[in-house]
Amino acid sequence: MNALDSAIRDLVVANRILANERVLDAYGHVSVRHPRNRDRYLISCSRSPELVEDGDIMEFHLDGTPVGGDKRNPYLERFIHGGIYERRPDVQAVVHSHAEDVLPFSITPTPLRPVLHSSGIIGASVPVWDIADRFGDATTLLVVNMPQGRDLAERLSDGRVVLMRGHGFAATGRSLSEVVRVSVNMPTNARVLHKAMQMGEVRGLSAGEVDRRLAMNPDGPEFYRAWEYWATRAGCGHMLAPREKAAKKMKKGGKNRKLSGRR
Amino acid sequence: MNALDSAIRDLVVANRILANERVLDAYGHVSVRHPRNRDRYLISCSRSPELVEDGDIMEFHLDGTPVGGDKRNPYLERFIHGGIYERRPDVQAVVHSHAEDVLPFSITPTPLRPVLHSSGIIGASVPVWDIADRFGDATTLLVVNMPQGRDLAERLSDGRVVLMRGHGFAATGRSLSEVVRVSVNMPTNARVLHKAMQMGEVRGLSAGEVDRRLAMNPDGPEFYRAWEYWATRAGCGHMLAPREKAAKKMKKGGKNRKLSGRR
Amino acid sequence: MNALDSAIRDLVVANRILANERVLDAYGHVSVRHPRNRDRYLISCSRSPELVEDGDIMEFHLDGTPVGGDKRNPYLERFIHGGIYERRPDVQAVVHSHAEDVLPFSITPTPLRPVLHSSGIIGASVPVWDIADRFGDATTLLVVNMPQGRDLAERLSDGRVVLMRGHGFAATGRSLSEVVRVSVNMPTNARVLHKAMQMGEVRGLSAGEVDRRLAMNPDGPEFYRAWEYWATRAGCGHMLAPREKAAKKMKKGGKNRKLSGRR
Amino acid sequence: MNALDSAIRDLVVANRILANERVLDAYGHVSVRHPRNRDRYLISCSRSPELVEDGDIMEFHLDGTPVGGDKRNPYLERFIHGGIYERRPDVQAVVHSHAEDVLPFSITPTPLRPVLHSSGIIGASVPVWDIADRFGDATTLLVVNMPQGRDLAERLSDGRVVLMRGHGFAATGRSLSEVVRVSVNMPTNARVLHKAMQMGEVRGLSAGEVDRRLAMNPDGPEFYRAWEYWATRAGCGHMLAPREKAAKKMKKGGKNRKLSGRR
Repeated sequence: MNALDSAIRDLVVANRILANERVLDAYGHVSVRHPRNRDRYLISCSRSPELVEDGDIMEFHLDGTPVGGDKRNPYLERFIHGGIYERRPDVQAVVHSHAEDVLPFSITPTPLRPVLHSSGIIGASVPVWDIADRFGDATTLLVVNMPQGRDLAERLSDGRVVLMRGHGFAATGRSLSEVVRVSVNMPTNARVLHKAMQMGEVRGLSAGEVDRRLAMNPDGPEFYRAWEYWATRAGCGHMLAPREKAAKKMKKGGKNRKLSGRR
Repeated sequence: MNALDSAIRDLVVANRILANERVLDAYGHVSVRHPRNRDRYLISCSRSPELVEDGDIMEFHLDGTPVGGDKRNPYLERFIHGGIYERRPDVQAVVHSHAEDVLPFSITPTPLRPVLHSSGIIGASVPVWDIADRFGDATTLLVVNMPQGRDLAERLSDGRVVLMRGHGFAATGRSLSEVVRVSVNMPTNARVLHKAMQMGEVRGLSAGEVDRRLAMNPDGPEFYRAWEYWATRAGCGHMLAPREKAAKKMKKGGKNRKLSGRR
Repeated sequence: MNALDSAIRDLVVANRILANERVLDAYGHVSVRHPRNRDRYLISCSRSPELVEDGDIMEFHLDGTPVGGDKRNPYLERFIHGGIYERRPDVQAVVHSHAEDVLPFSITPTPLRPVLHSSGIIGASVPVWDIADRFGDATTLLVVNMPQGRDLAERLSDGRVVLMRGHGFAATGRSLSEVVRVSVNMPTNARVLHKAMQMGEVRGLSAGEVDRRLAMNPDGPEFYRAWEYWATRAGCGHMLAPREKAAKKMKKGGKNRKLSGRR
Repeated sequence: MNALDSAIRDLVVANRILANERVLDAYGHVSVRHPRNRDRYLISCSRSPELVEDGDIMEFHLDGTPVGGDKRNPYLERFIHGGIYERRPDVQAVVHSHAEDVLPFSITPTPLRPVLHSSGIIGASVPVWDIADRFGDATTLLVVNMPQGRDLAERLSDGRVVLMRGHGFAATGRSLSEVVRVSVNMPTNARVLHKAMQMGEVRGLSAGEVDRRLAMNPDGPEFYRAWEYWATRAGCGHMLAPREKAAKKMKKGGKNRKLSGRR
């Protein structure tokens, strides 16, 4: 399977995982930078992530125009993805989500910061982008053009995630696997922080702990387990790459292996 | 399919969506104004929305009497619908819901106001109707006659939604699709606002943002995606109109389309 | 079907409804007074309510001894039921539940009171029984004998429900249908009240509204709809009595009925 | 079935229960001490608990090295289990969970203490282990070696449970059945305590009530009911031991038993 087919397959799996884990619902989307052309990205045509299939994937220039004049209905807010890819050469995958549990942090002054071991990846704290700052008081809050997408990417800066006031968040990853992990962990971290704040002073991750997490290899073996688990729960287990399936076989290991004391 | 059959089919789909999205449960109901006669409305006989079928739909005069002496058991609270249709010629569809997350805003002085991009449609803030104000201290809180239905519609005034103290809410729409969208978004907005209030000062939608939302075409293409998603989740995908199915086909688009870099 | 078979069938349906609506889980139980003998009650042998079948139903004297030396494993806490039936000749059915959402009201001074139209039936406010008051500081909190059951019934007094500190609640009904309804509504009311308390002063049901609810016929037609809905959701639709099925047929009504404007 | 096969079977059932009850998800694990060799324990190779099967079970020395050079991928954090077994000869089973509802108590000064009858088993209050105290400010918070496992066990001391700051908890049991019960009850107790704290002064279990619970036989008949219920819900009912199935048969009891007043 070549790099493009592999990216498309992983993108479909990512769609299904994010839908099944309730990070995406009718709205929201996930994309991946084209593996052969840094100035393009892959994303589904406009349909619900839980329904996305191989044949739905479209290719876009960073400015949001479809490559080759593809006439299918695109996501209205694809400029979130293009704006970020344009500014951030290190980013290989982007998620835009409306996940509810994060939203209170987008409409209050309380910063969303990591308190769980798995959320160190979101960085020391998450900036909030308010579309009204530059685009005035009468938008729909949706990111519908490149100026808005670029403004959002500027607020994201070097970070992993940016909240969007009254709307949701945009998350980035060095791989699809990483952006999926960040996106699934964000709502959990938000829920726990929200509850803890009602109980006293909250001990979040230290700067050292955040840095340690940011330094971990995003595609190490410990992270495969979550990808496999989520893909299986989403009914995509069969779509996992042969390499991963080989690892699975090894894990299933020796049914014949004699444990001490057995028969 | 003529306009009446189309309205009946959409009403059945709306019932199933609202049940599946947990806006309606054993109680609560949805209606649509008769497409050919402004002084009548269509609503199921008294049964749970998740079970409603084509043959359950009844027709009523605005005062709640069944057309043609239909003897089936009607919803006790149909006067909510008739009272609203009577006062509001612009309203084409009505939902009455007991959705739990909205109820705390019906029994405290805290106003329910929109904080999410998708809830601008509920208006700047939602009035609360207390049946005791006019009907005294010993009702069951249920709207069981036209005087109560008219009193509720008066409190609704020109708005999209009205809360009913200790009971639920009534929502209106310029179409079934719109009233379903309003009704599904209300509980989400309520949950997020409730949580945010515990975290600091809440930045809700501005007046300009609310007006912008109210000005959007309620049946534009972006809104079809949610209707299709919810209908599919509710097992009614097959009931969508041919026009919508054609759009779906187009979205599925070119499986043969060559993405750059592919074979 | 004679009165006893009818009671057994309804008791099985009640078990399944309460399990499916998450009022009962591994623990908790529901009983009904014997229709022919006021000094006996019917309750399942000790198994999870979602598994209870016809053949599991046992018969007990009010003091908790099984009639006829039935050797099957009884519920440890059946004395809750016997203690209440003994004191309250008006009570025909009892539920003991550990439903989580009610528990915070059993361990704080905040009274649980009705705030929703459907919870007026619980009375103006719900007493809390603390087993330690009479039985000391080293019990398991479980009601394991008649003295404890009687003490609980005394705290219940003339009410519909009593909370059990750190444990759950016991609810009563003039019929199985009523006690199921009370038990399903309790957690909803608790959740809404808990949230509302964080938002300002709470307007609960007035004394007149509570009295009005208590005066309603517990087995009126509006209440059948919930019983049918819950039974259907619990997979027991086929077990509903013929009379109820006849009503269902009538509701399904005229598929041939011509709505005005149709073909 | 010999003791080892029995332990393996129960360990698989425990994995499935804990996954189904949402105590474990992609991460987290459960182990049991080897029935024939106190210096070894049994635990699955590294895979999600809901997928664990008989052939996945591996055997480890207490220091975390696999017996017999088994090359399958082990859980990274198995040192939690070894560290505890090493220190605590009374412990026969260990669970490590990330269950979300407990986490706010791991990052605030508020102690997690038992407020429900079923949580007395967690002890008077639960200590919190912060990996940074001894291992500094730049760990991943995961327990990845024996020094960390031993430090955690030291904080656990003689208790049943220890929270792990920003991470989860480790629970112990005198049997698999007990550690499963403790682990399932912990999140419920945490949720109820969290809510109650917002409502006023909380009455938790007294010292006498906690001691009473700790004195109960962990494998008494009342506890079998929960094991059977959870195993059945997890689809493992068929894996229950013959002895338990015999008890089930007896509970199903006399379908022919004549209740008084029946035909």
